[in-house]
Amino acid sequence: MSAEWIAVDWGTSHLRVWAMQGETIMAQAQSDRGMARLRKDEFQSSLLEMIENWLGADPVDVVACGMVGARQGWVEAPYSAVPSAPVPVAPIRVPNTDARIRAFVVPGLKQNAPPDVMRGEETQIAGFLANHQNWDGVICLPGTHTKWVQVSAGEIVSFRTFMTGEMFELLSKQSVLKHSVGDGWDEAAFAEAAADTLSKPEQLAARLFGLRAADLLHNQNKATARSRLSGLLIGAELAATRPYWLGQQLAIIGADGISQIYAGALQLQGAFVETANATQCTLAGLSQARNLTRQTV
Amino acid sequence: MSAEWIAVDWGTSHLRVWAMQGETIMAQAQSDRGMARLRKDEFQSSLLEMIENWLGADPVDVVACGMVGARQGWVEAPYSAVPSAPVPVAPIRVPNTDARIRAFVVPGLKQNAPPDVMRGEETQIAGFLANHQNWDGVICLPGTHTKWVQVSAGEIVSFRTFMTGEMFELLSKQSVLKHSVGDGWDEAAFAEAAADTLSKPEQLAARLFGLRAADLLHNQNKATARSRLSGLLIGAELAATRPYWLGQQLAIIGADGISQIYAGALQLQGAFVETANATQCTLAGLSQARNLTRQTV
Repeated sequence: MSAEWIAVDWGTSHLRVWAMQGETIMAQAQSDRGMARLRKDEFQSSLLEMIENWLGADPVDVVACGMVGARQGWVEAPYSAVPSAPVPVAPIRVPNTDARIRAFVVPGLKQNAPPDVMRGEETQIAGFLANHQNWDGVICLPGTHTKWVQVSAGEIVSFRTFMTGEMFELLSKQSVLKHSVGDGWDEAAFAEAAADTLSKPEQLAARLFGLRAADLLHNQNKATARSRLSGLLIGAELAATRPYWLGQQLAIIGADGISQIYAGALQLQGAFVETANATQCTLAGLSQARNLTRQTV
Repeated sequence: MSAEWIAVDWGTSHLRVWAMQGETIMAQAQSDRGMARLRKDEFQSSLLEMIENWLGADPVDVVACGMVGARQGWVEAPYSAVPSAPVPVAPIRVPNTDARIRAFVVPGLKQNAPPDVMRGEETQIAGFLANHQNWDGVICLPGTHTKWVQVSAGEIVSFRTFMTGEMFELLSKQSVLKHSVGDGWDEAAFAEAAADTLSKPEQLAARLFGLRAADLLHNQNKATARSRLSGLLIGAELAATRPYWLGQQLAIIGADGISQIYAGALQLQGAFVETANATQCTLAGLSQARNLTRQTV
């Protein structure tokens, strides 16, 4: 089967590819060959291995977003500065590729003050806006590094990154809390902990070790500890982003599980939240980016 | 040389021993055979290896404090509950030891609500109070897990543990920030960052990723990033502990470097701080604990 074009989401730790016919997915695949694991000369071979069967007689467009465009990536796609459209310029052509592909990388966005950067999320936002004409509001993209993005008149006005997901991983798997945090989920414990740091964010630092002590002294359930840790950290993030979400039109773009957790916490604060599927937004955004390559090539 | 008694500070990651004659240090040694690395049956041999030359014809008292008294330690020394004197009961005798030693472990302290525990710090506080008659106030013991301890009339009234040191290690060495944090120290950057989260603790989550972005966009100095990270985290801790230190008599017990950092941050807030040497406090506390063993054996 030969694809009309190939969509690629290439992050720090993963590589996902889709064989596309217009907006329709014909096939898909993924691997753990993320940007952090690859040397410069390994990007093309890692990709070709996965898409070999989708190539044909004519060169196929490959459009990629994510950390693949960082300085240590396949080709550096320099940041555009906000305020700007999510994908304001044509993707960067990767030079000297295999003749069977024409590969492009979508540039990330930067904000000079306060300093911040994104790579990948701009493409998801472009895809979201393509399906929501005249949408103004705030988009939350939860993940390892959660982004909060203010959108107005088709442009990204400002954004802010939170290390909440990475902090959760480090604290639950590599700190002293690893002995007390286990699998499972306790919704009430999450909600209580989120409300706690939302109202008293300065107490976050005091609450964390309590998860270990509550295990040692009171045999606190390990699922409860997990939910409380998540709630404490997300509550702290919501305290910091209050001006972003309070009284705003709000959308969450992310994987189902984490999106539901954020949506639940925000709804408890009276926020009205819509959620959008991350993969659909990525593919719609890469399709938009591909249109830009065809105008300029 | 035969010691009169042997003092032992046995934490999660280290083992330190002193050959004592009364309050005088005759010799000392240390190793990385902390409690976390040892099986139950390895404690005695790890210790004997280091103190062999200090033993004589008669059994020598060995008095230990720290995580060595945890459930997974040499012998479990059950927590005493606060409020109480720092070392309210005689240390626990380790059963079935080598005939050349009589080994004791100082119990830790627990606080039922909010749940918290300490092992080792209670001994340092006992040593501090032995040299500060009628001292009332708050003691800060900075480290991997920093303790803030309220002391009144010779008793520990309440305490709280902060994972600030462990968070700093995880974020600076294992998170995305490791690429942007390096060696060196920038006092002004530390002070500015500490003041920042002290006045706006809810912004901590928003500030962390900025250390990475400031490197990518503005080539921020890696020593500046290290100092800012430390300042952001310690500032958050000081925001949470404000009721502990505001207008209180204040002492810091810790290693020189970290004690100076905490003292500096607190002095910028107008607090009056005295500092005490951690090793001296530990040895004075172990000497106090040894006196308790001699009253009961």
